[in-house]
Amino acid sequence: MLFHVRMDVRIPHDLPSDAAAEIIAREKAYAQELQRSGKWRHIWRIAGQYANYSVFDVKDNAELHEVLSGLPLFKFMDIEVTPLLRHPSAIREDDS
Amino acid sequence: MLFHVRMDVRIPHDLPSDAAAEIIAREKAYAQELQRSGKWRHIWRIAGQYANYSVFDVKDNAELHEVLSGLPLFKFMDIEVTPLLRHPSAIREDDS
Amino acid sequence: MLFHVRMDVRIPHDLPSDAAAEIIAREKAYAQELQRSGKWRHIWRIAGQYANYSVFDVKDNAELHEVLSGLPLFKFMDIEVTPLLRHPSAIREDDS
Amino acid sequence: MLFHVRMDVRIPHDLPSDAAAEIIAREKAYAQELQRSGKWRHIWRIAGQYANYSVFDVKDNAELHEVLSGLPLFKFMDIEVTPLLRHPSAIREDDS
Amino acid sequence: MLFHVRMDVRIPHDLPSDAAAEIIAREKAYAQELQRSGKWRHIWRIAGQYANYSVFDVKDNAELHEVLSGLPLFKFMDIEVTPLLRHPSAIREDDS
Amino acid sequence: MLFHVRMDVRIPHDLPSDAAAEIIAREKAYAQELQRSGKWRHIWRIAGQYANYSVFDVKDNAELHEVLSGLPLFKFMDIEVTPLLRHPSAIREDDS
Amino acid sequence: MLFHVRMDVRIPHDLPSDAAAEIIAREKAYAQELQRSGKWRHIWRIAGQYANYSVFDVKDNAELHEVLSGLPLFKFMDIEVTPLLRHPSAIREDDS
Amino acid sequence: MLFHVRMDVRIPHDLPSDAAAEIIAREKAYAQELQRSGKWRHIWRIAGQYANYSVFDVKDNAELHEVLSGLPLFKFMDIEVTPLLRHPSAIREDDS
Amino acid sequence: MLFHVRMDVRIPHDLPSDAAAEIIAREKAYAQELQRSGKWRHIWRIAGQYANYSVFDVKDNAELHEVLSGLPLFKFMDIEVTPLLRHPSAIREDDS
Amino acid sequence: MLFHVRMDVRIPHDLPSDAAAEIIAREKAYAQELQRSGKWRHIWRIAGQYANYSVFDVKDNAELHEVLSGLPLFKFMDIEVTPLLRHPSAIREDDS
Repeated sequence: MLFHVRMDVRIPHDLPSDAAAEIIAREKAYAQELQRSGKWRHIWRIAGQYANYSVFDVKDNAELHEVLSGLPLFKFMDIEVTPLLRHPSAIREDDS
Repeated sequence: MLFHVRMDVRIPHDLPSDAAAEIIAREKAYAQELQRSGKWRHIWRIAGQYANYSVFDVKDNAELHEVLSGLPLFKFMDIEVTPLLRHPSAIREDDS
Repeated sequence: MLFHVRMDVRIPHDLPSDAAAEIIAREKAYAQELQRSGKWRHIWRIAGQYANYSVFDVKDNAELHEVLSGLPLFKFMDIEVTPLLRHPSAIREDDS
Repeated sequence: MLFHVRMDVRIPHDLPSDAAAEIIAREKAYAQELQRSGKWRHIWRIAGQYANYSVFDVKDNAELHEVLSGLPLFKFMDIEVTPLLRHPSAIREDDS
Repeated sequence: MLFHVRMDVRIPHDLPSDAAAEIIAREKAYAQELQRSGKWRHIWRIAGQYANYSVFDVKDNAELHEVLSGLPLFKFMDIEVTPLLRHPSAIREDDS
Repeated sequence: MLFHVRMDVRIPHDLPSDAAAEIIAREKAYAQELQRSGKWRHIWRIAGQYANYSVFDVKDNAELHEVLSGLPLFKFMDIEVTPLLRHPSAIREDDS
Repeated sequence: MLFHVRMDVRIPHDLPSDAAAEIIAREKAYAQELQRSGKWRHIWRIAGQYANYSVFDVKDNAELHEVLSGLPLFKFMDIEVTPLLRHPSAIREDDS
Repeated sequence: MLFHVRMDVRIPHDLPSDAAAEIIAREKAYAQELQRSGKWRHIWRIAGQYANYSVFDVKDNAELHEVLSGLPLFKFMDIEVTPLLRHPSAIREDDS
Repeated sequence: MLFHVRMDVRIPHDLPSDAAAEIIAREKAYAQELQRSGKWRHIWRIAGQYANYSVFDVKDNAELHEVLSGLPLFKFMDIEVTPLLRHPSAIREDDS
Repeated sequence: MLFHVRMDVRIPHDLPSDAAAEIIAREKAYAQELQRSGKWRHIWRIAGQYANYSVFDVKDNAELHEVLSGLPLFKFMDIEVTPLLRHPSAIREDDS
């Protein structure tokens, strides 16, 4: 089941830079592991923003929340979730 | 080059239903032709809305506008465009 | 799987009153049938508004959209969908 | 009498983590006690958010405020209250 | 139980003026009857607006909705409802 | 002359609690003195919010500002002012 | 007593042009008469908008509403009212 | 003197198409004449929108308004004006 | 050339009070000097707000920015600028 | 390919002033180098704001992001990007 997610990262400017760097490194590893598992199906950077648009493919809402709330940057993010489904005009196999 | 697009369709309630049906049929054909050409890379229906999230892969801004302004439903849509690029954490070949 | 839905009804004032009455009657029958099936789990009127808050229990996003887009009043509604899951503090069996 | 409540939790990032943990533990105990009493009728987690949708069943506005302002996390929450009533299409006994 | 209500009236400009006048006359009679009954406790015009702030004193949410949805201008109004209670600093007997 | 005022209190979480308590005590005394003088005609708590709706009866805009800017919590408040007048449908003597 | 007012004019495009012209002519006469009386103290056009910023000098809120609701274009306007007073840094005699 | 202007065109769907075409043709001629005169310094289409960002170089606010309110599409546009000046980091001669 | 300006002052609560007092004193002197020069034509306090509406009469956009960015409180202000011109209904000599 | 960019700078008031000055100096050098290279085609200050409107001419979205995320002030900016293209009414050679 697919979900569209927008993540905006807002790291407080007074967070020590090594603490920030450590979280960001864990975030990257976490994101890549989830992509390999197929649950984080797409991720794109938004030009000019510390933000991304992503598409997740998970079993249900509970799994989506587990994945998102486990993000190392979760507490510094604004997250918007939109449930998706196959569009009646879609022709591509994996757009659902 | 990738662009994220949200389209919200608002057909006036006083548009005759056969006129509406004719436009919608042309819209579907147009969308499928663009998907086949590879320019309209993804399209998903947003649950509970007459709306979609899409990803376009076009040569430049001008081609994106040509494609969007050619939509049969263009004058009944609210459209939001966001330029995308490859995310530094992406691993999937075709997310760029 | 649970979804929170807000529906705001906006019937155009120039819709003939018998056409409106007929749609509203079909809406009521449709809503009650879905409640009996268990898919429309809760519905509450919002005080002072032609609007409701509802909770749906459906198989997936696609079924949610099928149910919502089938509403006789669908084209006169603004609909907001929010995916829900069991809260870690919940104690009630059926809040998930 | 039923009220729909949305709670968004925003814990300041410079609050010491043990102070945060202690408040969160008290919050959970408080929420479960109110659910057992029947006053906090439903609670659902919103996917991807540190937030919940809830339904309260209280005697009046004053009791609702007493319950909400007593939340251990109250000062770190944005709260929205909407008064509810039985929907004319409702069929379930306890949706009012 | 007290509720704060804001009503903004938006009469479509193509409504025939005698139809508008008739509704407005019924609105006034309805509002005065509810004031005499004590349910519509306060009403003030907002300067420069076709709008009012009001305070209602009703038994519960259901009665509030019955009163508001019965307004002859209901379908031409935007209505916002806020539940009130006695303020801890209030000294006036009837502010609760 | 009547004014409708909404006050939202936002005390910074890092303000020492005794400093906060002292300001809140002065706020209460100030509010009650103004109610006794008749200038602060109504005050209601908004359910679930650290906020109130109030009605002031003052000589003019300047006196209103003097009263509001003298609030001990003034610098921690968001304040919205709306000028009111007697509604043409009002029947209560003191709603003007 | 001074009030700041913003007026945005939105004449429906299907209003016959001679009806519009007649209302606009009455509006101008009305505005100039109120300026001569001293009640409409300032009026400025906002560049690029069918809108103005104005300052009114009236006895009280009731007179302000009488003046504004008497505008021939009143039903085609969005109006925002802000109560003003003498600024502590003002030096000009007539800025209060 | 430079001004940044955003124009969003919203032609009512019930305007006859030949009337629309005639206005759009006049709009184009008007825009090109103003570009030749140097007053409309830049114009760019916004991708996916019936809208443009422009920069005007005019003598003063009054001339800007004269130019904008003379647009054949003026009554079907939402216009936002922002006054500009030379940026302290600018190096290009004609960015002021 | 006239500009309408709204200034909202937001002094951080952790700014030492003598530092704040010193800036505010300089702000007042600066504002009065500009009023005497004729560049700051009007200034009014907004009732219930730490904010003002002002009208500036300057040579061009650059001078306006120089004046505003020189405000001692500039970095603690939200500022909105709107270019004004003589209204076609204005009769007062100095409203342009 | 052209992009319209708005940048709003928000430097935290508790950033030491020499650290701020150092970043601002680097920002200016960076902006001028990019203007010389032709990638930052226009930059204008917005009157009364610590903000600018700019136009970038870059190869693609990825290059735009590289340029913007490299801004020394990037983490203290709100940035909005809008893709542009040649307007059908444009006559100037370099407006595309």
